[in-house]
Amino acid sequence: MTRSPEATRFVLVAGTTETARREGVSAAGADPELLSTTPPADAELLTYGRPVRTDTVPVSPTGCPTPALVTRAVRELHEFDLAIVDGGLAEPTGAPTVSVGAGVGRDIGEQDPVPTAYGAFEAARQYGRELPTNELWLAETIPGGTTTALGVLRALGEDAMVSSSLAENPIEKKEAAVTEGLAASSLAAGDAAGEPKRAVRRMGDPVLATLAGLATGGVESDTAVTLAGGTQQLAVAALLRHGGYDGQLGLATTSYVAADTSADIRASARELNLDLTVTDPGFNATDHVGMERFVAGEAKEGVGMGGALALADRAGIPMEDVRDRFVKVYDDLLGEDIADSMAPRGGDAR
Amino acid sequence: MTRSPEATRFVLVAGTTETARREGVSAAGADPELLSTTPPADAELLTYGRPVRTDTVPVSPTGCPTPALVTRAVRELHEFDLAIVDGGLAEPTGAPTVSVGAGVGRDIGEQDPVPTAYGAFEAARQYGRELPTNELWLAETIPGGTTTALGVLRALGEDAMVSSSLAENPIEKKEAAVTEGLAASSLAAGDAAGEPKRAVRRMGDPVLATLAGLATGGVESDTAVTLAGGTQQLAVAALLRHGGYDGQLGLATTSYVAADTSADIRASARELNLDLTVTDPGFNATDHVGMERFVAGEAKEGVGMGGALALADRAGIPMEDVRDRFVKVYDDLLGEDIADSMAPRGGDAR
Repeated sequence: MTRSPEATRFVLVAGTTETARREGVSAAGADPELLSTTPPADAELLTYGRPVRTDTVPVSPTGCPTPALVTRAVRELHEFDLAIVDGGLAEPTGAPTVSVGAGVGRDIGEQDPVPTAYGAFEAARQYGRELPTNELWLAETIPGGTTTALGVLRALGEDAMVSSSLAENPIEKKEAAVTEGLAASSLAAGDAAGEPKRAVRRMGDPVLATLAGLATGGVESDTAVTLAGGTQQLAVAALLRHGGYDGQLGLATTSYVAADTSADIRASARELNLDLTVTDPGFNATDHVGMERFVAGEAKEGVGMGGALALADRAGIPMEDVRDRFVKVYDDLLGEDIADSMAPRGGDAR
Repeated sequence: MTRSPEATRFVLVAGTTETARREGVSAAGADPELLSTTPPADAELLTYGRPVRTDTVPVSPTGCPTPALVTRAVRELHEFDLAIVDGGLAEPTGAPTVSVGAGVGRDIGEQDPVPTAYGAFEAARQYGRELPTNELWLAETIPGGTTTALGVLRALGEDAMVSSSLAENPIEKKEAAVTEGLAASSLAAGDAAGEPKRAVRRMGDPVLATLAGLATGGVESDTAVTLAGGTQQLAVAALLRHGGYDGQLGLATTSYVAADTSADIRASARELNLDLTVTDPGFNATDHVGMERFVAGEAKEGVGMGGALALADRAGIPMEDVRDRFVKVYDDLLGEDIADSMAPRGGDAR
């Protein structure tokens, strides 16, 4: 094996917004501790294949495991360089992280929920520009992140709708949170059009600010950038478009996001002129307990799942191999005591 | 390629001690900025193959490049999992790092130069214990580190001598610093025998505290631990022995350390019952400018060079391939403008 400095780089931004504490917007809201532990746990699962410092495998109250296990499964079959960026972690992680100065995001209903947004954007932009790579895949883990994504889209004046990690998208609760946030920030919808940093500082979260910085730095250095995720990454794409970048930009998501009729990601991707890749892991081909929640429409995305599946597909790895490896990763971590562990440790809604 | 959670793990601890500012103990002392920038730059070089945030390739005033370039060359030929631990960085790095709460070490002549030693030791120990791996290779980068290593050895009552990154080992200056440090800490030589954490807090540096914690956690979880380095790692081994661990422990160093008559590492390794591996990169087989300073006895070790060479050797990679790759790494980074860049950016004495 020979390592090239131009390898594919996969960067996971892990962080926190207190918006996830709002009742009903996130499955994690049921257990506030999981708001803090899910991102550092996801970072460890992707890096090491198991928890190191967090002692947590995030599982939703209904038993849906974190999509980190899917991304990890791909990583065990297909080499790619991984870096984790601290996009506002509330708890320490045992995974190595790059700091860009992002702090925990406060509730979207506050007047200035992401005071570190400008600094994190610029530090991430410099890092994204200097990273030696030809292609950058950007992923996220942040409970509550679809609500702040909606906030950013509205502040920019984009009418795209966001998806949900819940089977039933709590759109009204998200819209109410965004309305409250716009009022607190003295903004009307569209008032931050063309001002991406303002939009993400007033209505977003630190992960969105960091992702937008990384992507901006990437495209500035002629790196091919793919946003790996669902409607949160749509908000990142909107931030880039409103920052004046009109070049090529990829969006790689799962078939579960694409199938979500509450948010039409195909139309939104077209509107933002994104190269959309949708990959189906074929989880309906089995009745494994770890896959059936995805088939039921939970989680849908996160931790770069759609991007990892696209990378596997491009490398010619059969989805059957990905599923087999996912079962192994899942069973090693959760197989024995899933009945005991899933409810109390749960909570991976984004 | 299939990734196993039990892969070989190589952990670099990068940090700072203000002891390096003392005149003549470290080549980096000539330019105080390099005390701060060498460890984060080494971390970036090992991770990415080039500087990302630091914009520095550490080169000594006489033109010896950082041994990070050798370890990086091996990493480009032979896959191993890498993690960087922040052992008290004074400047940010673009490399992902794990935090254990280590702060910058103050001068050895102060009464309490490493107040974070106990906390860093315990956090590193927990991390070393939980890391999923069968074998752990531990490396360091800290200018001035051989002086603090000598301080720890004396505090423990060990009479081993330390090596130097300078061709001419400034033993008297190091001994004087240690004498001053013992007096400031109200210790006589040997007073901290059997008290490793006290020894490293009063006379050491944050990298030694972190390495000792990682190694302790590793052996507690039945992981095979190899200390990759020279006489600084000898001090880490002494800390483990004084902590009561009498099991197997490896030390992998370069032929340049082994050939240093100012410090008899073979005798010291025997005394501490270490499995010593000495690897010769064969740099004398060429007259490349980047290798000749090593042949002249400079640098000798650092950033896990001896351990990386041992890993390459074990994997059956010919040293000729390692040399060729080193030349490529060196020339890409320094080849064009070595005459301009080496003196002002220099300083990699440890």
